[in-house]
Amino acid sequence: MKPYDLIIRGGTVATASQTFKADVAIRGEAIAAVGRGLGPARREIDATGRVVVPGGVDSHTHIEQLTAAGIMNADSFETATRAAVQGGTTSVISFAAQHVGMSLAKVVDDYAALAGRGAVIDHAFHLLLADPTPDVLAREVPQLVRAGHTSLKVFMTYDRLRLDDEKLLDVLQAAKDNGALVMAHCENHGMIRWMADRLVAQGQTAPKFHAAAHMRASEPEAINRFITLARHVGQKVMIFHVSTAEGAAIVRQARGEGADVEAETCPQYLFLTGKDLDRPGNEGARYVFSPPPRERSDQEALWRALALGDLQTVSSDHAPFAFDQTGKLRNSLNPTFKQIPSGLPGLATRLPLLFDAVVSKKRFGLPEFVRWSASEPARIYGLTTKGVIAPGYDADIAIWDPKRRVTLADGPIHGLAGYTPFAGRTVTGWPETVLSRGRVILEGGEVTAQAGSGQMLLRKAG
Amino acid sequence: MKPYDLIIRGGTVATASQTFKADVAIRGEAIAAVGRGLGPARREIDATGRVVVPGGVDSHTHIEQLTAAGIMNADSFETATRAAVQGGTTSVISFAAQHVGMSLAKVVDDYAALAGRGAVIDHAFHLLLADPTPDVLAREVPQLVRAGHTSLKVFMTYDRLRLDDEKLLDVLQAAKDNGALVMAHCENHGMIRWMADRLVAQGQTAPKFHAAAHMRASEPEAINRFITLARHVGQKVMIFHVSTAEGAAIVRQARGEGADVEAETCPQYLFLTGKDLDRPGNEGARYVFSPPPRERSDQEALWRALALGDLQTVSSDHAPFAFDQTGKLRNSLNPTFKQIPSGLPGLATRLPLLFDAVVSKKRFGLPEFVRWSASEPARIYGLTTKGVIAPGYDADIAIWDPKRRVTLADGPIHGLAGYTPFAGRTVTGWPETVLSRGRVILEGGEVTAQAGSGQMLLRKAG
Amino acid sequence: MKPYDLIIRGGTVATASQTFKADVAIRGEAIAAVGRGLGPARREIDATGRVVVPGGVDSHTHIEQLTAAGIMNADSFETATRAAVQGGTTSVISFAAQHVGMSLAKVVDDYAALAGRGAVIDHAFHLLLADPTPDVLAREVPQLVRAGHTSLKVFMTYDRLRLDDEKLLDVLQAAKDNGALVMAHCENHGMIRWMADRLVAQGQTAPKFHAAAHMRASEPEAINRFITLARHVGQKVMIFHVSTAEGAAIVRQARGEGADVEAETCPQYLFLTGKDLDRPGNEGARYVFSPPPRERSDQEALWRALALGDLQTVSSDHAPFAFDQTGKLRNSLNPTFKQIPSGLPGLATRLPLLFDAVVSKKRFGLPEFVRWSASEPARIYGLTTKGVIAPGYDADIAIWDPKRRVTLADGPIHGLAGYTPFAGRTVTGWPETVLSRGRVILEGGEVTAQAGSGQMLLRKAG
Amino acid sequence: MKPYDLIIRGGTVATASQTFKADVAIRGEAIAAVGRGLGPARREIDATGRVVVPGGVDSHTHIEQLTAAGIMNADSFETATRAAVQGGTTSVISFAAQHVGMSLAKVVDDYAALAGRGAVIDHAFHLLLADPTPDVLAREVPQLVRAGHTSLKVFMTYDRLRLDDEKLLDVLQAAKDNGALVMAHCENHGMIRWMADRLVAQGQTAPKFHAAAHMRASEPEAINRFITLARHVGQKVMIFHVSTAEGAAIVRQARGEGADVEAETCPQYLFLTGKDLDRPGNEGARYVFSPPPRERSDQEALWRALALGDLQTVSSDHAPFAFDQTGKLRNSLNPTFKQIPSGLPGLATRLPLLFDAVVSKKRFGLPEFVRWSASEPARIYGLTTKGVIAPGYDADIAIWDPKRRVTLADGPIHGLAGYTPFAGRTVTGWPETVLSRGRVILEGGEVTAQAGSGQMLLRKAG
Repeated sequence: MKPYDLIIRGGTVATASQTFKADVAIRGEAIAAVGRGLGPARREIDATGRVVVPGGVDSHTHIEQLTAAGIMNADSFETATRAAVQGGTTSVISFAAQHVGMSLAKVVDDYAALAGRGAVIDHAFHLLLADPTPDVLAREVPQLVRAGHTSLKVFMTYDRLRLDDEKLLDVLQAAKDNGALVMAHCENHGMIRWMADRLVAQGQTAPKFHAAAHMRASEPEAINRFITLARHVGQKVMIFHVSTAEGAAIVRQARGEGADVEAETCPQYLFLTGKDLDRPGNEGARYVFSPPPRERSDQEALWRALALGDLQTVSSDHAPFAFDQTGKLRNSLNPTFKQIPSGLPGLATRLPLLFDAVVSKKRFGLPEFVRWSASEPARIYGLTTKGVIAPGYDADIAIWDPKRRVTLADGPIHGLAGYTPFAGRTVTGWPETVLSRGRVILEGGEVTAQAGSGQMLLRKAG
Repeated sequence: MKPYDLIIRGGTVATASQTFKADVAIRGEAIAAVGRGLGPARREIDATGRVVVPGGVDSHTHIEQLTAAGIMNADSFETATRAAVQGGTTSVISFAAQHVGMSLAKVVDDYAALAGRGAVIDHAFHLLLADPTPDVLAREVPQLVRAGHTSLKVFMTYDRLRLDDEKLLDVLQAAKDNGALVMAHCENHGMIRWMADRLVAQGQTAPKFHAAAHMRASEPEAINRFITLARHVGQKVMIFHVSTAEGAAIVRQARGEGADVEAETCPQYLFLTGKDLDRPGNEGARYVFSPPPRERSDQEALWRALALGDLQTVSSDHAPFAFDQTGKLRNSLNPTFKQIPSGLPGLATRLPLLFDAVVSKKRFGLPEFVRWSASEPARIYGLTTKGVIAPGYDADIAIWDPKRRVTLADGPIHGLAGYTPFAGRTVTGWPETVLSRGRVILEGGEVTAQAGSGQMLLRKAG
Repeated sequence: MKPYDLIIRGGTVATASQTFKADVAIRGEAIAAVGRGLGPARREIDATGRVVVPGGVDSHTHIEQLTAAGIMNADSFETATRAAVQGGTTSVISFAAQHVGMSLAKVVDDYAALAGRGAVIDHAFHLLLADPTPDVLAREVPQLVRAGHTSLKVFMTYDRLRLDDEKLLDVLQAAKDNGALVMAHCENHGMIRWMADRLVAQGQTAPKFHAAAHMRASEPEAINRFITLARHVGQKVMIFHVSTAEGAAIVRQARGEGADVEAETCPQYLFLTGKDLDRPGNEGARYVFSPPPRERSDQEALWRALALGDLQTVSSDHAPFAFDQTGKLRNSLNPTFKQIPSGLPGLATRLPLLFDAVVSKKRFGLPEFVRWSASEPARIYGLTTKGVIAPGYDADIAIWDPKRRVTLADGPIHGLAGYTPFAGRTVTGWPETVLSRGRVILEGGEVTAQAGSGQMLLRKAG
Repeated sequence: MKPYDLIIRGGTVATASQTFKADVAIRGEAIAAVGRGLGPARREIDATGRVVVPGGVDSHTHIEQLTAAGIMNADSFETATRAAVQGGTTSVISFAAQHVGMSLAKVVDDYAALAGRGAVIDHAFHLLLADPTPDVLAREVPQLVRAGHTSLKVFMTYDRLRLDDEKLLDVLQAAKDNGALVMAHCENHGMIRWMADRLVAQGQTAPKFHAAAHMRASEPEAINRFITLARHVGQKVMIFHVSTAEGAAIVRQARGEGADVEAETCPQYLFLTGKDLDRPGNEGARYVFSPPPRERSDQEALWRALALGDLQTVSSDHAPFAFDQTGKLRNSLNPTFKQIPSGLPGLATRLPLLFDAVVSKKRFGLPEFVRWSASEPARIYGLTTKGVIAPGYDADIAIWDPKRRVTLADGPIHGLAGYTPFAGRTVTGWPETVLSRGRVILEGGEVTAQAGSGQMLLRKAG
């Protein structure tokens, strides 16, 4: 037999349903075999005492993206994907973000060029539709979906991004006609705007009022409405970043009634609460993201929703802004909550936080970690070669030291934002070695991949 | 003892909770006593074998009102209130309907003038807010509510009438600040518009497509959203014309959670179905009203919701248009469903239909008839002297012949529209004699009241 | 006109749906008229500043009854009904309590004789079926129901009283065949016995463990099961003494699905909690009744269930035992919770507690007080001449001083038990004068009615 | 490298989460590797165009078991396990069935001896507790659970088998104390007995009345009760053979509330309906099993519950009786439904029916087939080496021809009962070759394994 290119020897391999001791053999860019006593190979990595899992798939990230308010995210594709690798993630899906008046095809080309130049791992694009004109929907969307960009993102809130119910139906119908998926940011726009304006008028401008403005009721309302629209059209949908128990309950109820709905949450809703927004000084600005973090009881509800399969994935919603006047504190050292760009860096911390809670703290086990971090996002978004350790799949693999304790801290690991809202937490379990399509891209704490070495992933519609 | 002015002798008196044999004695405009062997009186009406109930309160009627599309309702206050009297109704609440740009106070004055000239029975006004500007909400609404117009109507659909969620919150907050009630027409605007446009584009223009355009899912969505908004503000609300089982279920669930919500339905949702829209030729146009009639299973669900107290009242939503080119068939003998003015005449038929189903067919009994037709609308809208047969209340009384069988037919009894969508049905039970504030206003089939003899009813806020 | 026998002049009269100022005129045993300026009369009672309501109907009381454990209730019919009168109640329904092996007809005769000798107010009997043999069901129940005893009580717990599911179905079927109502004490017998035995085995014998033994989950389970059985047969049922939020939720859900179910709660579940069982020494024994009192959140849930119409009545479940070795402390000054007879005196306090909370503290209003205390129990159990102030109804009337403040205390007012678990509470509102069929039976704090002057009330089946 | 013992070459391998092309290499009794181009091996099986799945795990079967009514099942361990193999199943769990008065340890020994002599595949035992005396629970259960019999079965119906609620709590508590699982047959005993007696008394004795006797409401009632008991103790439970939409809804609701509940259904509830019981003559007797088959809408609800993860497994509930006077028609050629032994042969047909519906008819896909038929039952019951194709797991493998069409028919394949209630159905997909711990035991349609070659599987508690 011809030797394998690489064998990861002696680790504990985890799939979405099982855990077992096995070697993983790689030939070229793909996994060739999973077995005991495999060999020989030209190179071996000793994984004794280590956990071997699919590299993470982060299906909700904002990279090198201009917000509707005209602020650029802190990260480039290079810095963002390097952060991802350090956190055990080997695929990202970010947004080709149309703004009003833009050609969607042009937008995709532009983002693809940026990513092609910078990304160190494989990546795909969601089409963010801020202006679904008849031409965009009738001409560009079909072409782009056929070309492999099979997921459409819509916003129900944010000026200049949000779509009203008619436009949402237009997008849902276009998705149905073309075999695409539609993901939505579900918060009630009017409620938030009304409340934010009242709060500011009353002088209640500290970061903590961001959570009051994005009142919890705005989420289940919008989820319920979006699912109603999707069911009318008969279109499958994904609810982004569920943050409340009530939101998760709406998803559960709709699924129970047969609605074709999936949903994600994010580490910030599993590990932070609204109290974090009330940190002294302007520290709370680090925790301004939308929807905002909620209560401990919501965290429990979201874990249960994951366990029950009501939610399928945990993504980062990475949307970094530096904690200075170019980002979180722009224009002012003391901005009102409405001026603070909404978002947090999360690519590097998503998986360590999840591994610690799910595996090390034994809330669940390795299969759940694999499912929520890699195999389910790969399945849902059509990344058919990712997220699984089995013959024929891309050799995107992360080898974790399940005993290593790390205290999260601000620093360049988080990308150009340079801080983490999870600073101070100690997690057990850390990715030691990471492979992308068979190449070792993280080793000894160093990202060894070259900018631009990642590939754009095209997906099949339908 | 001084003789009473009038005694209704020997009938079966019904209240919202009981039925008993008694005489009803009237002095001046009010009921003086309910008892056995009362007397003497200057006049007596023999009510042997008759049922004596409070005159109906129809809390949802459109009279002499210009639609947003610029079409005038068929009826004047005189013709509408004469129709009401013939159907056993002695109070109506119609709309002081603001259109965009109008002063609300001026609107009230104008409608009050029209009603003052024409109405033969007592009447009140809901303030219909199509343009709740800061000035309207901060200056006019407080004045008008204090002046006795304590109920605000909002639309969630119809171009030029509908309010978005922010405006709805503005109105709800103004209502809360001033102690008013808010009623809403709850249908999802975007869904209806999107669907109507698609149907028309596909050439599906017959009246029956009106029901497809107003798909049932648009109702529970909007009810859920409106209740969410109201709960955010902490404001009591009334859901108008619930038509679907799912809509009633949302109301029930919200009430169970402690929400301060009440709701009505109308005879058209209890007695008609979507099939009526598919009558041959353009006959279906008679059944174009919004929301449209649904299924038999919805009828059952609505009866149950009434029985359970989830719904409290049955109003007519009287909105008459002649069945000719001035109304239903305007511009064309064969209009598309979008061109047909939405509405039906209902003042004359509401109570006979309800009496027949609730009392004669023994689905429930007289107390439920009284409750849903008179005492509950009087309570909810603050008509504190109406809807009850007890000492001190206005002597607004209808004496029904419970055995009289009438086959409903088109004709002037229905007001200027001159037809009824219930034509052909035979009901048992008919109002024989009607009193308004002690005056006999219907006798021997003739309305004897003078135009303008009705009074405007002012209500107390809070 | 012939003078009335009595006029209650100038009070505020309340019905189940309204409140108004009126005189109430009585002729013989019945109400003759309700009106303004009525008269003349041979006697007048000045009710200025007073509230005039129907005398209370207490539909769930144990009087002069032997428990299955062989202990006699503290009260005789005379003492119990005197307590009732002092609390504003003018009708009671107690139990003709069969024990295993007894003839039901004989049981009724015996209780009727006791009541005939002692009762100072009108009274009816529920048939308590502890031994529904084929003969009892096929022969005695039809005769007794036809004779006017139209309500059957079953127990799902208590040794020697409880019926298994088959027997429950037998009784439900017999009720259906004969047009009777079935009421049930719903707690899961096995759960309670299992838990009680474990607690005692562990030495956990203090009164507070009574609540642990009657764990809250035992109630919704049994309610759900009983309703399932009743729906199988198609029989209307009444759930006695709902104590938990979950129990009320089961009732609400079943009603929403169309089940023919009504339900009551009692003051002990609205005003006491499980903490009362943990009072020092053996004081907790005063609070041993079944089901036990629960949490404050249950109280809120029960009030809401009353408001929503899920529960219809508030009865006392009067079951008095003296607080000495003949009753609560029998056999021992320090009994285990299993030995303490379960029950509390409640006839005198039911209405003052309810009036205070519902009316004086403005949680609801007078119509709700009348509904839950008098008119609804009268309607549900077929006491067609009781519970209403309207012409033709029995002149059973209580005149309350709505301003009088009374601090509840132990004493003979509570009957022979001589104590009240509500001691120490101050209530506002107290019954000043009480009439039974036109006779004044409470005046100046004195019960003036003679033992045996009450009448047995027979009811109509179907 | 040492050659493998066997390679299954070129098939489509399915796990509980993925499907991929790979060879499966076996060394000794276990799977050694899964990969592309594996080799060499001493023997190869060409699986081109075939599907390679874990051998089925049938976790609910009655083998060589005496019913409480004293009738012996048709099959021996040899005939039953041969039927299993022909249907692609490689592990069975049957019952060590205690009857009243028996020692449980003795029962296990006896069944183990029977299975040891006859079984051709690996097998485990559920302990069926018909008489959970203090001694059984305190002494035998701990020993037996520690010895590897970690699952306890209880019945809520059937005379001589059923446990009342107290006994159920005893068993649940013993399971909790010893780290065992409890499975339950949930039907309300009293309802069934009451109804069956009435039906027979009315002469309604045909097989179809079996379904009327086991009315659908008896299932959700019992499931709800059993879950209530389990939650009280804090014990994990498995609901056997859910047959109704309402039953599945109770499971879903309890899981949503956090209850530790899993559940199964069986092919008879997915593919048959109550109409099958009404076949002419005594043919309906073939369909007498409990719970009975229900409606098509229940089938849909059960498929959805599987899809949603509310149900986790599909077992056969194999309980065969010959269709003659030794079995279904015992005592009579025309027995009443109460005399017909309840049960059906299902070991051979479970997986072909499931494969056809789930895979061939594309209702779901191969991962769902694997999950419900093998990996989930293995996980739930602690068969840690079964149900998975991955290195280290037992080489229990079934190779299916996904194109083969077979029309099910009566015959010896179904074991000694010799018939199948699914006769006449054509399925696509059939197991061609089956391996048990590396041995080929089915080949060319012939079962090649020796009686007694199966091993007893012991499991770990906790």
